[in-house]
Amino acid sequence: MQLNGVTIDDTYAEAFPTWIARVIITAVTEEWAKKAATEATGFATSAIGCPCEAGIESVLLPEETPDGRPGVSILICASKKKLKEQVVERLAECVLTSPTTAVFNGLTGTEEKIPVKLHFFGDGYEYQKEVGGRKCWVIPIMEGEYIGEEEFGIVKGVAGGNFFVMGENQMAALMGAQAASDAIASVKGVITSFPGGVVASGSKVGSNKYKFMPASTNEKYCPTLREKVPDSKVPAGITAVYEIVIDGLDEKAVSEAMAKGIKAAVKVPGVKFISAGNFGGSLGPFRIDLHKIL
Amino acid sequence: MQLNGVTIDDTYAEAFPTWIARVIITAVTEEWAKKAATEATGFATSAIGCPCEAGIESVLLPEETPDGRPGVSILICASKKKLKEQVVERLAECVLTSPTTAVFNGLTGTEEKIPVKLHFFGDGYEYQKEVGGRKCWVIPIMEGEYIGEEEFGIVKGVAGGNFFVMGENQMAALMGAQAASDAIASVKGVITSFPGGVVASGSKVGSNKYKFMPASTNEKYCPTLREKVPDSKVPAGITAVYEIVIDGLDEKAVSEAMAKGIKAAVKVPGVKFISAGNFGGSLGPFRIDLHKIL
Amino acid sequence: MQLNGVTIDDTYAEAFPTWIARVIITAVTEEWAKKAATEATGFATSAIGCPCEAGIESVLLPEETPDGRPGVSILICASKKKLKEQVVERLAECVLTSPTTAVFNGLTGTEEKIPVKLHFFGDGYEYQKEVGGRKCWVIPIMEGEYIGEEEFGIVKGVAGGNFFVMGENQMAALMGAQAASDAIASVKGVITSFPGGVVASGSKVGSNKYKFMPASTNEKYCPTLREKVPDSKVPAGITAVYEIVIDGLDEKAVSEAMAKGIKAAVKVPGVKFISAGNFGGSLGPFRIDLHKIL
Amino acid sequence: MQLNGVTIDDTYAEAFPTWIARVIITAVTEEWAKKAATEATGFATSAIGCPCEAGIESVLLPEETPDGRPGVSILICASKKKLKEQVVERLAECVLTSPTTAVFNGLTGTEEKIPVKLHFFGDGYEYQKEVGGRKCWVIPIMEGEYIGEEEFGIVKGVAGGNFFVMGENQMAALMGAQAASDAIASVKGVITSFPGGVVASGSKVGSNKYKFMPASTNEKYCPTLREKVPDSKVPAGITAVYEIVIDGLDEKAVSEAMAKGIKAAVKVPGVKFISAGNFGGSLGPFRIDLHKIL
Repeated sequence: MQLNGVTIDDTYAEAFPTWIARVIITAVTEEWAKKAATEATGFATSAIGCPCEAGIESVLLPEETPDGRPGVSILICASKKKLKEQVVERLAECVLTSPTTAVFNGLTGTEEKIPVKLHFFGDGYEYQKEVGGRKCWVIPIMEGEYIGEEEFGIVKGVAGGNFFVMGENQMAALMGAQAASDAIASVKGVITSFPGGVVASGSKVGSNKYKFMPASTNEKYCPTLREKVPDSKVPAGITAVYEIVIDGLDEKAVSEAMAKGIKAAVKVPGVKFISAGNFGGSLGPFRIDLHKIL
Repeated sequence: MQLNGVTIDDTYAEAFPTWIARVIITAVTEEWAKKAATEATGFATSAIGCPCEAGIESVLLPEETPDGRPGVSILICASKKKLKEQVVERLAECVLTSPTTAVFNGLTGTEEKIPVKLHFFGDGYEYQKEVGGRKCWVIPIMEGEYIGEEEFGIVKGVAGGNFFVMGENQMAALMGAQAASDAIASVKGVITSFPGGVVASGSKVGSNKYKFMPASTNEKYCPTLREKVPDSKVPAGITAVYEIVIDGLDEKAVSEAMAKGIKAAVKVPGVKFISAGNFGGSLGPFRIDLHKIL
Repeated sequence: MQLNGVTIDDTYAEAFPTWIARVIITAVTEEWAKKAATEATGFATSAIGCPCEAGIESVLLPEETPDGRPGVSILICASKKKLKEQVVERLAECVLTSPTTAVFNGLTGTEEKIPVKLHFFGDGYEYQKEVGGRKCWVIPIMEGEYIGEEEFGIVKGVAGGNFFVMGENQMAALMGAQAASDAIASVKGVITSFPGGVVASGSKVGSNKYKFMPASTNEKYCPTLREKVPDSKVPAGITAVYEIVIDGLDEKAVSEAMAKGIKAAVKVPGVKFISAGNFGGSLGPFRIDLHKIL
Repeated sequence: MQLNGVTIDDTYAEAFPTWIARVIITAVTEEWAKKAATEATGFATSAIGCPCEAGIESVLLPEETPDGRPGVSILICASKKKLKEQVVERLAECVLTSPTTAVFNGLTGTEEKIPVKLHFFGDGYEYQKEVGGRKCWVIPIMEGEYIGEEEFGIVKGVAGGNFFVMGENQMAALMGAQAASDAIASVKGVITSFPGGVVASGSKVGSNKYKFMPASTNEKYCPTLREKVPDSKVPAGITAVYEIVIDGLDEKAVSEAMAKGIKAAVKVPGVKFISAGNFGGSLGPFRIDLHKIL
């Protein structure tokens, strides 16, 4: 299959389940909401070595938030066991501390919920108040008062949706990956947790040589090893491969993000080949076929 | 003492020791170096609830980096015990994964060093190479090759340098805090680890009411509690207080940052009072007197 | 009338007709489209001293542009006589020169059109091509090929829609104005042509003292002159006033922008009073009543 | 000559004289100073079709400005005849109107000076005041008071310093050009007036086919015309060429900027060839030799 002259590999992305909370952070300006959201979703690229995966889902207009202020919604993804602790700590350390922020649950009506009790920080001076129809706690702080909901819906979503952008040289592939990442930013229900939404060093599970490593370089996709490994997956003429990794609330959102990202990438001169990563079904139950979604 | 018509409290900031590594991240453009650095220093505002404190120290010109590319230097601060793990994980998950990055030790000639062995990710395909006089490992990855030093100097630095910006209303105090944070960004050897460099909810150690809390709101500095707590430290006419918290390589750098930050804050209309936080010497050995440094 | 505790003056904004072209600029990434758009709409705050008024209307997703790439739409506003020259020069000097850009007409189906013949730059090497259903010229340039439509629809729109954000101090009013400007950025069909969307020095027509001046400070709205001019319009307790000025394709879009901007401004602590500017009907035929639109 | 494996053409950039004013814009935060500076230097890429050439020279720390606030210095370049009008209009429309700005002369001690009398805007309410040792006018405005110097030094500088970044594909050349532009941003005394500092469509003087055109595409440097024009200057294997154009206070600053820009560009993978533009001495008296400055 060809799209804008670029070959789309006949393959699929393999993805797996994750638990997800969505947090709405509002602030006096969009800029301050973004600063809090950036800090709260930092050091959260990959569950392999980070405590969770997290990212900015979308920027919200004042009319889209419970308190009528500009906002940002973030997704935090982890195992069910770890998710509560991650939401609590990231809100406590990175949002409660951030100027003018308020925090609201972004997933209402879910079956499962987690408590996020920040109000103990108020040391007894905290009190309850309804804001935008939400039951919130108000905590007196040095800047004035912090407002926050303390019950967050969680859902079983999809992690590890992905595709590969391959280019005739590194800068072409990188700009293709960036165009893809920008396009995905407009899709509701998904995040790309890596820096700038782009992965430079996609990995395989485990390591052949170093048994203590949980993950290692995916040598079959390394352009400099094309002649050195027996079964390289790097097509002729490709000198750089970037991976776009997507987590989302459901398979539909992840598929839509993949489709929009691929369509944007193939518009960039020098992008030559699009593929996706899978492990033959051993990693997870979701199988998102590139040809089907395009 | 008055500065530009603003009262500077006759008090001091109390700070305590921390161990620090400085990492130089370079990339094809300054923008990509910043993206990697932002992710690598995220979720790292306060040692109370985050695994470390970290932030961007400065942007580096091509002529200031070992490989002649644009870069960013970051500081990672933690206990000696935790520091190695934090540097390894943040580089492995947030920088090695980031497009076009290379990594170098930013503290040469120190007595103490930590190993940061990312090269196992290469699964045997990695090799050694000298770059800019530094002994580096080259790891084949999907985008091409990652280059990184694997030994980082660490020093005993200073955490918790601080001052308070108080305003006649919240927006005045916030803009004063932002002007301070911007001015501190130009000082070498320091970081402000909180979102946007500003803390909205300064805390006290422990809690009076909830014994399980390691920290809670500093009610003496909460403007809305001014009439409710017996010994409020909020001056009359002040309705918002922001704290600027600074970590740095030594007391001199932290003092310089405090002085520059205060001088910038007092230029903002509506900023009325500057103070600093201390616990009478119980927290740490460093005592940085506001009047002395100005 | 009160909104979130802020008084909304019982008055109206007076606006006047202007001719408007909408240009869609696409590029390889959103960032490069923004750079071109920013340059092309620079030095275009006020028709009083600038050759036109111009600004960024909105960011466009790949699926919203004729060539399927990310884009930005800008509005250029001037008298019918001047508009053609301004569109030609701004596209020729600021967009044709900008990396990877293409340009498309953003107002199809209008009665009036202007020709924008950039293809002469091709010196005979240019040729015609259809892109996204649009008849375009392709011009060979140093980076490769520039693509552009050369006929642009123009409409008679509305200039000078406005409101005033007044605060108990300058920083409160400024943050209120910024929140308003951010909110207006999401409204289709409008621009705010001043720096950051905010005017610090609203003017009156002509000057009482200097007859050669086409405009001068609006002393009735100057807080520092409150006790010095006989009929000051500055309410008690107000120390700063910012004006938000809006140009738009029609009165409906301008009214919607005013309403969203005001609703955002009143959420900012320290904003105390909202008003609007008019000259009793002598300036123009449009009269947008604050109480009616809210 | 080779630099990092990239061929540096044995040629020179030809530049010509221009008159330059340097304006220091300060504001409450660096961000607001940048917004004013961006507007004031917009629509000012090339003297061919814009009223002047202008750009941001550098960001200034509080300790580097007359009023101790953060700032930005800009250069405005034009013929001696046009320069005064351009400085007056750009300051009046884009800086006086911008929140919290003040304006100072950035070239003291020059032989030649121009008056920039904005104080008439005050309509008689203006008054004089010394700020940071500068004689300024204070103008009451809606946000409070505007402060500005009204005499600006001007010098005869150098316009049109340049070099070409050529790449094996468009994205490689573009990223090389961006890296160059970023590196030049740190050099004092120079600006790059085009969008993002990069020119996609370098021109020749006049046109062979359309006699009414003052400038047209430089077909000898157009990669798509390589086989169609008899004396193409595009080396084999090059598919994109970007020009970096530099204006500066003197030849030394322009040469330094060219050297830093070239050194940065050659670090980008896929950049293959560096050259420069000249017209055999017919354009101007300055001749900046690539091999000499490197």
